[in-house]
Amino acid sequence: MEKTHPPIATRVDDILGSASLGTRRTVALVVEDAADELVAIFYSTLLQDEEAARFLSHSIVNERLHHSLRRWLTDLFVAQIADDVTLFSDRQKTIGDVHARIRIPIHLVMQGANLLKVALFQRLETTPLQRDDLWAALVYAGGLIDLAIEIMSQAFVRSTASRVQTDEAYRLFSLGQDITLERESQRAALMEWSQSVLFSLYGTEQEAKLASISASEFGLWLHHRAGVMFQGSATLEHIERSMRSIDSDLLPQIAAARSGSRSELPGLLEKLQAAIAEMKFLLADMFQSVAAIENGRDPLTQTLNRRFLPSILSREIAIATKNDTQFSVLMIDVDHFKQINDQWGHPAGDAVLRQIADVVLETCRLSDFVFRYGGEEFLVALVEMDSDAAFQIAERIRGAIEARDFISPDNTRLPVTVSVGIATFDGHPDFSYLIKAADHALYRAKQMGRNRCMISESARMDRVG
Amino acid sequence: MEKTHPPIATRVDDILGSASLGTRRTVALVVEDAADELVAIFYSTLLQDEEAARFLSHSIVNERLHHSLRRWLTDLFVAQIADDVTLFSDRQKTIGDVHARIRIPIHLVMQGANLLKVALFQRLETTPLQRDDLWAALVYAGGLIDLAIEIMSQAFVRSTASRVQTDEAYRLFSLGQDITLERESQRAALMEWSQSVLFSLYGTEQEAKLASISASEFGLWLHHRAGVMFQGSATLEHIERSMRSIDSDLLPQIAAARSGSRSELPGLLEKLQAAIAEMKFLLADMFQSVAAIENGRDPLTQTLNRRFLPSILSREIAIATKNDTQFSVLMIDVDHFKQINDQWGHPAGDAVLRQIADVVLETCRLSDFVFRYGGEEFLVALVEMDSDAAFQIAERIRGAIEARDFISPDNTRLPVTVSVGIATFDGHPDFSYLIKAADHALYRAKQMGRNRCMISESARMDRVG
Repeated sequence: MEKTHPPIATRVDDILGSASLGTRRTVALVVEDAADELVAIFYSTLLQDEEAARFLSHSIVNERLHHSLRRWLTDLFVAQIADDVTLFSDRQKTIGDVHARIRIPIHLVMQGANLLKVALFQRLETTPLQRDDLWAALVYAGGLIDLAIEIMSQAFVRSTASRVQTDEAYRLFSLGQDITLERESQRAALMEWSQSVLFSLYGTEQEAKLASISASEFGLWLHHRAGVMFQGSATLEHIERSMRSIDSDLLPQIAAARSGSRSELPGLLEKLQAAIAEMKFLLADMFQSVAAIENGRDPLTQTLNRRFLPSILSREIAIATKNDTQFSVLMIDVDHFKQINDQWGHPAGDAVLRQIADVVLETCRLSDFVFRYGGEEFLVALVEMDSDAAFQIAERIRGAIEARDFISPDNTRLPVTVSVGIATFDGHPDFSYLIKAADHALYRAKQMGRNRCMISESARMDRVG
Repeated sequence: MEKTHPPIATRVDDILGSASLGTRRTVALVVEDAADELVAIFYSTLLQDEEAARFLSHSIVNERLHHSLRRWLTDLFVAQIADDVTLFSDRQKTIGDVHARIRIPIHLVMQGANLLKVALFQRLETTPLQRDDLWAALVYAGGLIDLAIEIMSQAFVRSTASRVQTDEAYRLFSLGQDITLERESQRAALMEWSQSVLFSLYGTEQEAKLASISASEFGLWLHHRAGVMFQGSATLEHIERSMRSIDSDLLPQIAAARSGSRSELPGLLEKLQAAIAEMKFLLADMFQSVAAIENGRDPLTQTLNRRFLPSILSREIAIATKNDTQFSVLMIDVDHFKQINDQWGHPAGDAVLRQIADVVLETCRLSDFVFRYGGEEFLVALVEMDSDAAFQIAERIRGAIEARDFISPDNTRLPVTVSVGIATFDGHPDFSYLIKAADHALYRAKQMGRNRCMISESARMDRVG
């Protein structure tokens, strides 16, 4: 390697040293002159992001952000703060942290900086700088902006990761509260609101305002709590839409009917009743579905949800790499499962899957990980185990299933077997390669007639070679 | 705004259009010629990261990565894949996703690209390209690399955020399993290992190998499960160190004593017993501490843990911005709390805090958020509430606490009061500004004699102006 890994101080030195003082002064003059235009390019880029734009278009932010962008640019090239590496570096880190906090995506910042660079380069081309000085001006100005964005990005990603982690912890904490109690409380809150509307309709105060559902305890809960618990739920959006239409359409119509021709009231109240009934149903449904998803285990087989596969395999790969230990993966597929399902129905198929999962869980150690990978597929991560030992485990599973009596609903014995592909960690950091290798070995096991275990080619070659 | 927000196709067009075909060909020749050197610069940058280096220095990865980096570079400048914008863009996205999966930090990729750019620019300077063509070559080559990295970063950050979210969900899922059962199982597993060692010591097979604790069920659990549940725990590291020293020091000494002079055995076994006892204690301690931390609520007052403050305030700011609703924050501080603690002891102070928390929780709505912010400080987030209404809530809290009978251990009445700072969301996207504003208002309330509520200056100006 010709180049070692320079720390920031060295890189700043290299960048500053690439241009003469005269060239740096030319860049400073150009930046000072064009600052407003350059800042406008950067700012307009940030507005592209719909979510960021909501904040950034706010007048206060607009003004402050223009000011900070301008300051950032002139600090770099006019005040030349990079002469003080710590100041330069700390400033960029702070900006990255703020971006993470107010959620300005890093790629937009990069885009803004890239467009700004081109505009600055165009300005520089129109100066009288000669070939080599112009080259140096570009290397200097581009390099400094690039380095600033690089430091910013590192801070941004670190802060964002920690934010996402806390967000998820909070979401699961919200879910972890007594969810049955929450469901009943909110059902009651919904009823309370509808009661208040009915009372004020039939009450004596003819002009009493009908309480909006959005402002009710239920509405506030839905807006401020449910969004966390039921992140991204389509049902939640459905309920929110219903709520909005009750407030904006139905309630005003009811209010008008009350003071006008009361003959329309019964029809409108029927509509209201139907809307509330639907909302109650959707609410129950939403609570129901979240309980299933968040469980972390497959409800049928009690094996792990494949959602955790990336977390667990990445972690095991890191451990195996760090400690130089072995680590194997089994991909287990039920042979001719479709026929079992077709001939004996889904309940019989489900029973077969449950029993297979039991065999697998009993055969593995407590420290291994068993996932439901697909409909009739299981993936097992065998920690600290080489491919020979993994093959033995796979054989034990295959044999136990072949020997087991799976009984159909009409009491005939079902001939259930499995095929298994085995792959062992070979140093490749991407867990998807390991899965692919096991999958490929499984495919060969199927091709060779099923009810057998095969070790992945690459793992075998490694052992032979 | 002079510049609109160009989509990627337009930006690629701009970049490709910035240089003539002849200049592009010169860049292609330089890249082809210098590819190995440029790739080496990039690769050596990635090795800087200790964790990334562990994977990347592996021979297989080394070879594959050199190959992919070379391909990436020649695709850009020799094969010129950017002529097909979709292909170009998809390729960069895939790379970003892979980086997220194998955890190569984006700032290292940016750094590698930046150093590569400079080296390429230096090569370009030595070509016979004239001033304006050299300028165009830099804008073209730099622009294309920058755009590629930008697209990569967007994919990287998205994938990383989703990975972090799943990791945290998995961690909390692990914790959510029956933790008491887990504790007892692992205590039993530890005992089982020590029993097996003792049996093989006193057994008839003089040469039976002593089972290492790392390879025991307990050891595997500690390595592969505990690391997730007790992320970053110092106690866990302590246990791991003990385990390593048992395997590498104590067991070999015991084995040697067994076959040599058995006189040393009693002393060594005492050491082993002490090490196991310590491990049992640390294990219990670790399970204990995690239950408290993960609760999400402050154990004393049952208010929310301030760890969730960023998640909740960011979310509320997003909701307030999107729906154009109000949102206020109270910062509540107990007056002269130190005196209460000093005079009546911590138990009395704790009782006061609990009662204050009760008053606050009773006064707020279910949709509000009450946090323990500091020792004697609470922060309340009042959703959909303007500063007038927030002031009324604050006054109600202040009055209720002033009126309440706080009784000291010797049955005298303690004069407990609170001061409150109030701030209302003014459009600034950074929640830390809102907290600062409430804090500043609280400071003024203290200065003006305590036992009072003050609205933040900026919020008041907004209302007046």
